[in-house]
Amino acid sequence: MLYIGIDLGGTNIAAGIVDEKGNILKKDSVPTLAERPIEEIVNDMASLCRRLLAEENISIDDIEAIGLGCPGTVDSQNGIIAYANNLKMKNTPIREMLGDRFPGKRIKLENDANAAAFGEYAVNGGGAGSFVFITLGTGVGGGVIIDGKLYKGFNGAGAELGHTTLVLDGEPCSCGRNGCWEAYASVTALIRQTKAAMDSAPDSSMHRWVEENGKVSGRTAFDCARNGDKAAQAVVDNYVKYVADGIVDTINIFQPETLLIGGGISKEGEYLLGPIREYVEKYDYNKYMPKTKIGAATLFNDAGIIGAALSE
Amino acid sequence: MLYIGIDLGGTNIAAGIVDEKGNILKKDSVPTLAERPIEEIVNDMASLCRRLLAEENISIDDIEAIGLGCPGTVDSQNGIIAYANNLKMKNTPIREMLGDRFPGKRIKLENDANAAAFGEYAVNGGGAGSFVFITLGTGVGGGVIIDGKLYKGFNGAGAELGHTTLVLDGEPCSCGRNGCWEAYASVTALIRQTKAAMDSAPDSSMHRWVEENGKVSGRTAFDCARNGDKAAQAVVDNYVKYVADGIVDTINIFQPETLLIGGGISKEGEYLLGPIREYVEKYDYNKYMPKTKIGAATLFNDAGIIGAALSE
Repeated sequence: MLYIGIDLGGTNIAAGIVDEKGNILKKDSVPTLAERPIEEIVNDMASLCRRLLAEENISIDDIEAIGLGCPGTVDSQNGIIAYANNLKMKNTPIREMLGDRFPGKRIKLENDANAAAFGEYAVNGGGAGSFVFITLGTGVGGGVIIDGKLYKGFNGAGAELGHTTLVLDGEPCSCGRNGCWEAYASVTALIRQTKAAMDSAPDSSMHRWVEENGKVSGRTAFDCARNGDKAAQAVVDNYVKYVADGIVDTINIFQPETLLIGGGISKEGEYLLGPIREYVEKYDYNKYMPKTKIGAATLFNDAGIIGAALSE
Repeated sequence: MLYIGIDLGGTNIAAGIVDEKGNILKKDSVPTLAERPIEEIVNDMASLCRRLLAEENISIDDIEAIGLGCPGTVDSQNGIIAYANNLKMKNTPIREMLGDRFPGKRIKLENDANAAAFGEYAVNGGGAGSFVFITLGTGVGGGVIIDGKLYKGFNGAGAELGHTTLVLDGEPCSCGRNGCWEAYASVTALIRQTKAAMDSAPDSSMHRWVEENGKVSGRTAFDCARNGDKAAQAVVDNYVKYVADGIVDTINIFQPETLLIGGGISKEGEYLLGPIREYVEKYDYNKYMPKTKIGAATLFNDAGIIGAALSE
């Protein structure tokens, strides 16, 4: 069984032909150019799909369904992007628009964070009855899979795990509240924390790292900490605590069989996961029953394509 | 169809005969006397059930199942209380023990907070596809019902909504962490907050209230605030914010169709619910899709009996 998954982002449209196990047979991407008319964006999505099919000698008739993952508030049931700031879309009937280009083909619509979560679940979830995926990126995204299905609440807007308070009245968050987990545990937050630490530690090797690498990134503090820089280690320790504390919250709520952490920073591997596991072991409310398995996600940018292809 | 629900608490054993709609035909309670041998407690549970049946002229054969709600960490699947501090129970095969007193009868075991949530869902949930119940009491308890079933995670220990951070490194919580929602939004916390406010406001009418009522309670600040006491109003405003902020978190995660707030303090009605709704309206991440209905629970102590009787 073959599917097409499309990951529509503010910068790129990525698409791939995906088999039922989550293998990508072929993928490519084109620029979104989000400022242009939506019809043109949908045309390019359709052209990309057709090109991938042609290059693999696959007929559209052999495609079970086309899944589309989109940012913003997505009304999966009605096939509408209710609002997507970085795509300039509001009440956009994107499923119908894409369906017009593929008459008779089933088109599925999903929020991009949920699609990515489903991709990780499909490939790395091992059929877990309950599964949570956390992405640490520009924001903190989440996705929850219960009994093989995305949990999204009655209105489809749930699983916003990053938008839960970590510090009441704390740092401002993009959502309009203060103190959300996202405002402490995103890579955006880590960069802010790194810059603040550099300001108060003029001798830190982080300054040299930035000279060599052009700018502060989510890797600055981790790289320098690994080389023994104390100020960098303090940044990492604090950041890990922010991440881990939110993960304890998530586990106390969902007690998922498996929880995977994704986003570029999950490449830090055990350097990130080890302390998180230790923190969770210490503070998890559950002391008497089996424990959630915590691991790193593996699909990175492919998760959205695979999840869009395979989710319901 | 008739059921028996038992709510086993540290102080009392309450039980009732419940019909399939959640009506209690007859109920009563006896002291738990938690320090005595478990066999004696189970004997008293069984006697209480038999007495209720006799008083209503109902045969045990007409009872579909007996449900038992217990505090602590409950392994529903295996019918075991893994750990219950206030019952001095550890790895107690309570389902088997109660089953021995009612041969052939189906016995169900549930965590007490989950049982109460299921009771509120059964009676007040209106068949919502997603439903959350929050109790503000000694602690902050939670229960989540998805597609008509309690959500408890893979190990049965989930839905500990009160044990999620509101203030990182904040007030100590009974669970061993600091800054949990429970440490700010429970009635225990409200009493602590009220006492602190009284210490710094010697002229507050709260002092007179306490003289008249014997001790500080969850009602002290609410009653005095309603009569125009400013220090009391500040306590209520802060407390409502603590409660409401955690409810925003819960909604951002679950986006339940209905969320009910229970515990004695929910008797404050709109005085509590109005400001909570306002806060949620302002800070809910979901701006474009239908909104969660927020209301007060109605069953109070009966919720546990009804939920134990009717949950799976």
